[in-house]
Amino acid sequence: MAFHTFPEPHLRNFTNRVFIAMGCPPADAELATDVLLRSDLRGIDSHGVARLSGYIRLWKKNRINAVPNIRIVHETPTTATVNGDGGLGLVVAPFAMKIAIEKAKVYGSGWVSVTNSNHFGIAGYHALLAVEQDMIGISMTNASPLVAPTYANERLLGTNPMCYAFPAGDYPPVVIDMATAAAANGKLEIAQRAQLPIPEGWAQDKNGVGSTDPNELKAGGSLLPLGSDKDHGSHKGYGLSAAVDILSAVLSGANYGPWVPPFVSFLEPPADPVGEGIGHFLGAMRIDGFRPAADFKHHMDNWITRFKAAKTIDPDKKVIIPGEPEFAFEQERAEQGIPLIDVVVNDLNELADQLQIPRLS
Amino acid sequence: MAFHTFPEPHLRNFTNRVFIAMGCPPADAELATDVLLRSDLRGIDSHGVARLSGYIRLWKKNRINAVPNIRIVHETPTTATVNGDGGLGLVVAPFAMKIAIEKAKVYGSGWVSVTNSNHFGIAGYHALLAVEQDMIGISMTNASPLVAPTYANERLLGTNPMCYAFPAGDYPPVVIDMATAAAANGKLEIAQRAQLPIPEGWAQDKNGVGSTDPNELKAGGSLLPLGSDKDHGSHKGYGLSAAVDILSAVLSGANYGPWVPPFVSFLEPPADPVGEGIGHFLGAMRIDGFRPAADFKHHMDNWITRFKAAKTIDPDKKVIIPGEPEFAFEQERAEQGIPLIDVVVNDLNELADQLQIPRLS
Repeated sequence: MAFHTFPEPHLRNFTNRVFIAMGCPPADAELATDVLLRSDLRGIDSHGVARLSGYIRLWKKNRINAVPNIRIVHETPTTATVNGDGGLGLVVAPFAMKIAIEKAKVYGSGWVSVTNSNHFGIAGYHALLAVEQDMIGISMTNASPLVAPTYANERLLGTNPMCYAFPAGDYPPVVIDMATAAAANGKLEIAQRAQLPIPEGWAQDKNGVGSTDPNELKAGGSLLPLGSDKDHGSHKGYGLSAAVDILSAVLSGANYGPWVPPFVSFLEPPADPVGEGIGHFLGAMRIDGFRPAADFKHHMDNWITRFKAAKTIDPDKKVIIPGEPEFAFEQERAEQGIPLIDVVVNDLNELADQLQIPRLS
Repeated sequence: MAFHTFPEPHLRNFTNRVFIAMGCPPADAELATDVLLRSDLRGIDSHGVARLSGYIRLWKKNRINAVPNIRIVHETPTTATVNGDGGLGLVVAPFAMKIAIEKAKVYGSGWVSVTNSNHFGIAGYHALLAVEQDMIGISMTNASPLVAPTYANERLLGTNPMCYAFPAGDYPPVVIDMATAAAANGKLEIAQRAQLPIPEGWAQDKNGVGSTDPNELKAGGSLLPLGSDKDHGSHKGYGLSAAVDILSAVLSGANYGPWVPPFVSFLEPPADPVGEGIGHFLGAMRIDGFRPAADFKHHMDNWITRFKAAKTIDPDKKVIIPGEPEFAFEQERAEQGIPLIDVVVNDLNELADQLQIPRLS
């Protein structure tokens, strides 16, 4: 597989032009670009510019609104529901998180459930907006149904990620950003491209039988929840995914469960929606609403130091602090550029031709 | 294994006498009793009266304060830190949840981090206090270190449960109440008593090698996080457990990670504490802070109906709604009584003799 490495500003400039060509207002284009670039910088290649043409295809089908009227539709001092008006989740979610942060500044915490949105990129981006303000950030979203609950032979839930982000002192923030499935769809796509089997416990085929063939998902199979099977706690992964679905969509008025519209443009949304678009849930809590921020950060550093020093089962392995690998990627790629596989580069160049903007390379 | 079944009021009366004998004020004794009985009623036998003698042993070692001065030590309109003054978590956690609920009544949401507490029973009890008020309830606690993070050969985290509870309309509440380990310690204890092997992926021995022997945990081994191994997402179980630890203890000033004092009285707490006691985190959000409660409940019922109707991999299995089995137990045991195994009955009778109160039977 061939890689091309692009300096971050070049890729940022290209991505911004795509969103402008789509008709986004300049500030929205800049924000959406920042979400995607942050993902590529942090090494989460599946959620960065590789998805750009997917967003455009949805926009072309009128399933993304480039000029949304994003607004609060229900509110208390520390809670709100935001209607994203079918906008890019990349724009709607930061809008909602900013409301949560403003509420937290005044009242200690803020919580926003979002309806009528679309795919919001990496959960970590939104949670980190709170961390920058010495707050704890929480973000989650529901997603197209791909996961079968324990005992089900039906896709009823998305890979529904949840993220908890905490500021530290000398160390980078602790960012727990995870799909609630045993493995995210991106990992299956990598196995498909490499024509390699996947571990048992990630997926089942269309008959509900566990499978190591990464192509079974496209053939009517399902992903499995974190825990993989009942004996290993798949009811917990299913439960977490359910919590994300309820907080993001039942609470806001978005579509939930099997009614969540697919991210891919070649699949039509269900004909009998139970809400609008997809849903997110975002929260911010001021650290100094609980104890002085300096004390908290001091103990976070102590926590991190202790876990990094843990005795390991293998001298070559270290205990990894959640968010540590992504932070290292971010430093490295900001300097050395962002590698894209040739499939993605070709896809972006075709997109440029369609939109009549300069090619990436 | 022999069972004796006791009518709930009899067991409640007995348990209340134990807490009174321990010196708890009557209202505290009644509350602590209610938490334990609710656990037995809901079929979570590991967290009910079976633990009563454990609380008493800790009290005898002056590690539980029967007459605590539980108080708010830091506060904003929607956040607070509560110091439990070494009291029973069974009393401290409801105190803290009530503060969260009162804040939510006024401001939409309330969040309380708790320091200097002890084991709080089932997480679901506390979260359900919010559900009774048409709120979403969230509860979590850290616990004695038994779990090794991914790649670690050291117990650094507890089974750190988290609970999300949501009211429904015609159906009982959805209660996602789960340990963040692959399996809770109670399941290992059942296998030990039955002298049966445990599934692979639950535990590792003292050398960090996976083991199916349930006795390895007592011989220096560790439990594994939800996900079991890196390939199956154990870093996610570890991350969730870390989030519980940080929200419960780093945020409140309690002990965290390997410093959490053990629940068993025969193990001494670490000599170099980093905080006070163990920590909890409790939250409440008003449903009508986001949308009218009736709309939410209508869609919750639709969610539940759809998931219950899911196509299954086996005609004998149904998709289970989180909290549904516990609700069924609660109905059944309230009528038919609570079965206790003879080991527990003997233990409670010995406890009665020590405390000079009437035996259970």
